[in-house]
Amino acid sequence: MTVVVRLQRELAWGDCDPAGIVFYPTYYRWMDAATWGLAAQAGYPAARMRAEHYTLPLVHAACDFLRSPTFGDLVEIRSQVTRWGRSSFSIGHEFVLAGDGTLLARGSESRVWCRYADGPGSALRSAPVPDEVRAALGGPPA
Amino acid sequence: MTVVVRLQRELAWGDCDPAGIVFYPTYYRWMDAATWGLAAQAGYPAARMRAEHYTLPLVHAACDFLRSPTFGDLVEIRSQVTRWGRSSFSIGHEFVLAGDGTLLARGSESRVWCRYADGPGSALRSAPVPDEVRAALGGPPA
Amino acid sequence: MTVVVRLQRELAWGDCDPAGIVFYPTYYRWMDAATWGLAAQAGYPAARMRAEHYTLPLVHAACDFLRSPTFGDLVEIRSQVTRWGRSSFSIGHEFVLAGDGTLLARGSESRVWCRYADGPGSALRSAPVPDEVRAALGGPPA
Amino acid sequence: MTVVVRLQRELAWGDCDPAGIVFYPTYYRWMDAATWGLAAQAGYPAARMRAEHYTLPLVHAACDFLRSPTFGDLVEIRSQVTRWGRSSFSIGHEFVLAGDGTLLARGSESRVWCRYADGPGSALRSAPVPDEVRAALGGPPA
Repeated sequence: MTVVVRLQRELAWGDCDPAGIVFYPTYYRWMDAATWGLAAQAGYPAARMRAEHYTLPLVHAACDFLRSPTFGDLVEIRSQVTRWGRSSFSIGHEFVLAGDGTLLARGSESRVWCRYADGPGSALRSAPVPDEVRAALGGPPA
Repeated sequence: MTVVVRLQRELAWGDCDPAGIVFYPTYYRWMDAATWGLAAQAGYPAARMRAEHYTLPLVHAACDFLRSPTFGDLVEIRSQVTRWGRSSFSIGHEFVLAGDGTLLARGSESRVWCRYADGPGSALRSAPVPDEVRAALGGPPA
Repeated sequence: MTVVVRLQRELAWGDCDPAGIVFYPTYYRWMDAATWGLAAQAGYPAARMRAEHYTLPLVHAACDFLRSPTFGDLVEIRSQVTRWGRSSFSIGHEFVLAGDGTLLARGSESRVWCRYADGPGSALRSAPVPDEVRAALGGPPA
Repeated sequence: MTVVVRLQRELAWGDCDPAGIVFYPTYYRWMDAATWGLAAQAGYPAARMRAEHYTLPLVHAACDFLRSPTFGDLVEIRSQVTRWGRSSFSIGHEFVLAGDGTLLARGSESRVWCRYADGPGSALRSAPVPDEVRAALGGPPA
């Protein structure tokens, strides 16, 4: 029932380091993009997040690195919610080579669904994850 | 006759700055990716560039910024060679909103087709742009 | 009379590409940091820019690349205003090796002093460069 | 006895996201820079790592985010080795505001001391962490 959202990224020259492989913070940039992609998939694309003053600050992020892609490789990121709280939730991200499915890395993020109390730039308050988001991503009702 | 190569990039959260618009060095990361894409289109994908010890150092880059995309916008980069030397060449890049074609920015790069004289990490020597590349991208013979 | 502001950056592993040299958009990240450094030097550090709803969008940026620094090199960026308009201004940036002063690159930016008409995220309006800024950086009165 | 290496970074405009706070992968870029700084402190600066064909691939990285710095904040990264294996080792990184020492985040990395078997770009082999490095950073002999 859990919904897996897929995103593809070609590893660019500038995402690699002098060892010729992925510069590891690149995985975290991709996790961030994948989580915003999950929100979009669940009815909250960037424009709506902005209009309703929502954002998704992080509490924790981690990643295990198994194999290193190199310049030109096409990487697929497969992301799903792995834990649902009232306003916090965790996302699991698997990184595989798009060609043959070789597992490259496995990451996770813990985030909080938040709203700017008084518009952009003001203090953040946690808010319940919208039911619409839970339903769209295969989560339980709040 | 000139070949235009197209690349699309969704403007990610992390590519934007606190003003909520594209952080401008992002355009240069995209130009770099687009130029490697041109080389791939012309028969020299990353793996071949690496195997034959070629790289494409820059001499000059510039960009005019007209309108700023924001988080979530899909941007199309349209790239073509605008000048052919023996080993140097220039690339023009147009950035438009994928939806309605609004022109966002216009950039250019001057690069040199180079080879590592003694394998990866050794000194760089300029080399003639391969005829295969000229032909594939609509350029004149050397 | 023109004031030159200096900033140092050590070229990090992740700022380099698989060729083992600086990934060129890094220069633009440094130019951006250097220009905010100029504003800070002129009495407008980040906190004040934010509090007074100012920002500095770009119109144009360019760079000539002469020599490539490599991982671990300490680079000094020397920045000064090279042209003063009412609200637009240009900045010249020289990049040298901190050790022996070898010139690496020469860049420029054209920017506009702007204010958010209705607070963060609202429309931008150009504003006159404050006299305090002109005076601090050796520019002529408006 | 454990040696703590300190590194300072000013949070740049381009390191922040549209929420006006640090874009979180920035912490990982800083951890990477801090670990190379540890190696430099222990007698293995970039030039020596390169000359002796050493590199430091990652196995795991994680970070807990407590408070978010904003544009212009000066952040101090305090790094130390927290676990010594034969060739693998872990590093703990604390991020604090340089001004008042407010704890911002706490990260960790697990890495392997590796050598390119046949020069740059060739296969990686794990190698014992040099005794010189252990001694310099307060670790036990191998």
